[in-house]
Amino acid sequence: MASVIDGKAAATAVLADVTAASERLKREAGVQAGLAVVIVGDDPASHVYVASKGKRAEACGFRSVQHTLPADTEQADLLALVERLNADEAIHGILVQLPLPGHLDASSVTQAIRPEKDVDGLTVVNAGKLMSGDRSSGLVSCTPAGAMRLVRDVHGEDLSGLEAVVVGRSNLFGKPMGQLLLAANATVTMAHSRTADLSAVCRRADILVAATGRAGMVRGDWIKPGATIIDVGITRIDAPERGPGKTRLVGDVAHDEAEAVAGAMTPVPGGVGPMTIAMLMANTVIAACRQAGIEAPSF
Amino acid sequence: MASVIDGKAAATAVLADVTAASERLKREAGVQAGLAVVIVGDDPASHVYVASKGKRAEACGFRSVQHTLPADTEQADLLALVERLNADEAIHGILVQLPLPGHLDASSVTQAIRPEKDVDGLTVVNAGKLMSGDRSSGLVSCTPAGAMRLVRDVHGEDLSGLEAVVVGRSNLFGKPMGQLLLAANATVTMAHSRTADLSAVCRRADILVAATGRAGMVRGDWIKPGATIIDVGITRIDAPERGPGKTRLVGDVAHDEAEAVAGAMTPVPGGVGPMTIAMLMANTVIAACRQAGIEAPSF
Repeated sequence: MASVIDGKAAATAVLADVTAASERLKREAGVQAGLAVVIVGDDPASHVYVASKGKRAEACGFRSVQHTLPADTEQADLLALVERLNADEAIHGILVQLPLPGHLDASSVTQAIRPEKDVDGLTVVNAGKLMSGDRSSGLVSCTPAGAMRLVRDVHGEDLSGLEAVVVGRSNLFGKPMGQLLLAANATVTMAHSRTADLSAVCRRADILVAATGRAGMVRGDWIKPGATIIDVGITRIDAPERGPGKTRLVGDVAHDEAEAVAGAMTPVPGGVGPMTIAMLMANTVIAACRQAGIEAPSF
Repeated sequence: MASVIDGKAAATAVLADVTAASERLKREAGVQAGLAVVIVGDDPASHVYVASKGKRAEACGFRSVQHTLPADTEQADLLALVERLNADEAIHGILVQLPLPGHLDASSVTQAIRPEKDVDGLTVVNAGKLMSGDRSSGLVSCTPAGAMRLVRDVHGEDLSGLEAVVVGRSNLFGKPMGQLLLAANATVTMAHSRTADLSAVCRRADILVAATGRAGMVRGDWIKPGATIIDVGITRIDAPERGPGKTRLVGDVAHDEAEAVAGAMTPVPGGVGPMTIAMLMANTVIAACRQAGIEAPSF
């Protein structure tokens, strides 16, 4: 029976360290970390996420600023706001909530954020720094950074001799996750929809990271006995067994089957999810420390 | 018996296309592609490389400019030269020959090159664009780009269903090679000195790329029958069988053993080596076309 990798507890530990670093920053440099979140339009889910990020930032002792723009905002006006935030010395981290309305070019907005303030780790400069092993000035995308923290909580810093398989090769998650595992000395396989015999590839993994967005795709017999499973998927499915019209959240891994084989695994929800927002706060305090010229913590 | 992947012939084909693109650039935009090579100090091997790059550039119809600086050049003066070349509209590609003398910081010099002119593909911006799949504005490091061209000559553009293993995880070669194979839909494993049972990992490979710098490290029984072998290593070893004091060049793969098992393999020399300089010329004409605002060729 697999042990549970408790993402909520790990996130709480990260947030305690973030809060301590935020206090040290005030004490040593007289600087309050500032996080600006930009949201365009009225998407209710996005507003819930943004509000929760703002609340969390304040709990960490940050200054939290929200810019809410109307759904018909022009690209040029959004870029002008990003430029103002890039130049604002009281703002150390900038996040543009995605998705943006369809008439806006999300990529050029994201790439306009100064890499030093790109706390989502989405600019090509931060991707390049990750790939080049420059952790001292780069910022790592929050979900892979959080997933990696959970891996380290199980296996320690050095994954020498372990095989890791990442299923899914997105820019947002799979590719940076592969780079993080490689930097920690794992032997890393990137698998994806074009992989032949995906189940056999997964069975090699001492550390299996699933980020396919397909509910329950990874079955029990895809898992090497004793493996560590990091499930990054989160899909809402119908759950008639809970009553008419009820739904529940599931991951990319068939949970009950996997639990019988794996050594340790993340639950969904409560695994990688809580880590993402914690690592956003971590990136913000790292960025603020660097910009204030004091030693930045690592997480 | 493995067929030979003829890097010289492939490089000749690339160079013919580069020359044609260079002529089109003159015809359509009135622009001659310009390549500036900077060399610091008197290292004879570096001077041989630089001279050969200059000659090749001229053969492609480029303007070739060489800047030779004394071995005691200051960092600031070298950076000032890079800035002048960045601003020079007649120069489309800049290459600083490595290694630099020990008192200079090679990384900050390389990173100072404008990504649009970084024909060696070594800046973090170009690494990030490669990882993010932005091939339309990025420039790919020459040796992995050349090795990938050889893979495509054997397997075509789409490597779906094939397993590729890259041995060696350097920023210069292994990591970008892994990204190129992944972008072509291969299932990619990054193996390295910390990999447990490296021979078993290599035996999975339909495409095995060896870049360890250890002569003859990959043995015949590490190779899946019929696999394609790309040998990036090149080491000079003693060859007493050729006479007293004689030497020869060998790759990372034990050639005679591998030849009996593999389906196709690159020789050393004459495999990946000739491709590197050809892809440097390819990057230069790509960069020049982009800067002149005409459609860039792909290689």
